[in-house]
Amino acid sequence: MITTSATYRSRTSTEPSPVDRVEPVIWGDPTGGPLTRDESTAYERDGLLVFEQLLDDGEVDRLGKDLQHLTRDPRLDGDDRVIREPDGRAVRSVFEVHRLSDAVADLATDPRLLDRAEQILGSAAYLHQTRVNFKPGFRGREFYWHSDFETWHMEDGMPQMRAVSVSVNLTPNLDCNGSLMIVPASHRTFVGCAGATPDEHFRASLRQQEYGTPSDEALARLVEAGGITQIQAPAGSAVFFDSNCMHGSNGNITPYPRNNVFLVYNSVENALVEPFGGTTPRPSYIAAREVHPLG
Amino acid sequence: MITTSATYRSRTSTEPSPVDRVEPVIWGDPTGGPLTRDESTAYERDGLLVFEQLLDDGEVDRLGKDLQHLTRDPRLDGDDRVIREPDGRAVRSVFEVHRLSDAVADLATDPRLLDRAEQILGSAAYLHQTRVNFKPGFRGREFYWHSDFETWHMEDGMPQMRAVSVSVNLTPNLDCNGSLMIVPASHRTFVGCAGATPDEHFRASLRQQEYGTPSDEALARLVEAGGITQIQAPAGSAVFFDSNCMHGSNGNITPYPRNNVFLVYNSVENALVEPFGGTTPRPSYIAAREVHPLG
Repeated sequence: MITTSATYRSRTSTEPSPVDRVEPVIWGDPTGGPLTRDESTAYERDGLLVFEQLLDDGEVDRLGKDLQHLTRDPRLDGDDRVIREPDGRAVRSVFEVHRLSDAVADLATDPRLLDRAEQILGSAAYLHQTRVNFKPGFRGREFYWHSDFETWHMEDGMPQMRAVSVSVNLTPNLDCNGSLMIVPASHRTFVGCAGATPDEHFRASLRQQEYGTPSDEALARLVEAGGITQIQAPAGSAVFFDSNCMHGSNGNITPYPRNNVFLVYNSVENALVEPFGGTTPRPSYIAAREVHPLG
Repeated sequence: MITTSATYRSRTSTEPSPVDRVEPVIWGDPTGGPLTRDESTAYERDGLLVFEQLLDDGEVDRLGKDLQHLTRDPRLDGDDRVIREPDGRAVRSVFEVHRLSDAVADLATDPRLLDRAEQILGSAAYLHQTRVNFKPGFRGREFYWHSDFETWHMEDGMPQMRAVSVSVNLTPNLDCNGSLMIVPASHRTFVGCAGATPDEHFRASLRQQEYGTPSDEALARLVEAGGITQIQAPAGSAVFFDSNCMHGSNGNITPYPRNNVFLVYNSVENALVEPFGGTTPRPSYIAAREVHPLG
């Protein structure tokens, strides 16, 4: 169960064949709570779980205000952690938000998130990455399909599929405002991507993904097998999904913004090593290289 | 009830105030069939009606094959009626398809479409415009919000809101593949747009709309009042909608293409005159200037 650079190949000149995942999906006790047996079974099978309105309106308000404030904070002008849209100045994402917002810091250690994450990981957890994503109304851009693990493995040196992402909706996720789409069961296959990664390419890729995206054929095969689940859920809902889920989202021309906070819990036993793609590691605000166990 | 250039102002240097529609929505007998009283009431109120699986699978297949064939027909290379994506060679739309496809010609006079259209228009009808729209999978582009009547009035010289559009799905319209979105009740308000129209701009606008789109504020007001209906319906379904409905669609990164045939029935009593925006009329393959009554 040890991954080497031969286990999951990607960013090669020609597209490698997809390979089956070698790691378990749930590393802890599936019935050891707080996930129920049914929830564990569903997560194991699909790679995702949706908890509607896990946070109440007051909690969502506090997070929303904190994070909107960041987009206007003059102290963050020119800060590398603030990512803007490719065609404008609108803020698309802010990284390392648990260090910029008390509300996010509190959320990260909230047992509703952390206990579920630790059950899945079968160990203590630390934050690999946090960010807020703003998909504005009218001209919100798409996020093209990708597996986070593919990127984290190749560009950050995450050894194994032993991380869980939690996306918390700050606004309603509707059928029409570019909600998160996940291919159920895609977490069971590692889809390698063609194309060597230029060094330092992450600055552009955080605006618009160009490397680490699947071929049309590979994506079509995953979708043929698993379909697409587009998450539609009210504000305060949380989606837990496996690091290797193929996911993306369409653009958004509706007036309804779609904002979310995104927290990645990694197992303390899965700390980063040298990137498997051979490039320089990305900065620590994108991929934490120090392990600080939570809880 | 006669419209003059002062009735519906648009393409002015500053945004005109929205005005109430002056024409009726249903010009014929609401209970004179084939629309039922309930359907007429809904169309009057919302400006749209969806008929699920109005065409059967065999009819959809025949249309689909005919229209896919057009995208590869070497005789249409360089034909102005074929519109390609802004960033590539993929075909986005083909205009005047009732003259290029027997299946579409038959569809245009099919009583399931034509009789309903004539009831709404209260007169004989002719084809103002027909086209097929291909929204491919993986990288289908959005169509930004617009009222067709705004364009047809300003650029083509359609005097009144007395046309009905029918969009027939050739592929499933899902929650996630950039399906048609309509703002219910928006047909009751004319939203003028800021920005003088350059002559001959239609070539660019058919690839990507730049003129004749509402301001964020005007769109937000319409949506606040009416919400958004995203049409989700199987292949063979038909959406009838008023010429002044505000509508658009998001991009499509899923592997599921979203293709439709679009037919616009105009009343023979609403033939085109000089464009109200003062520009040169667009070519007849986009806006028929001769009235040939159907049926």
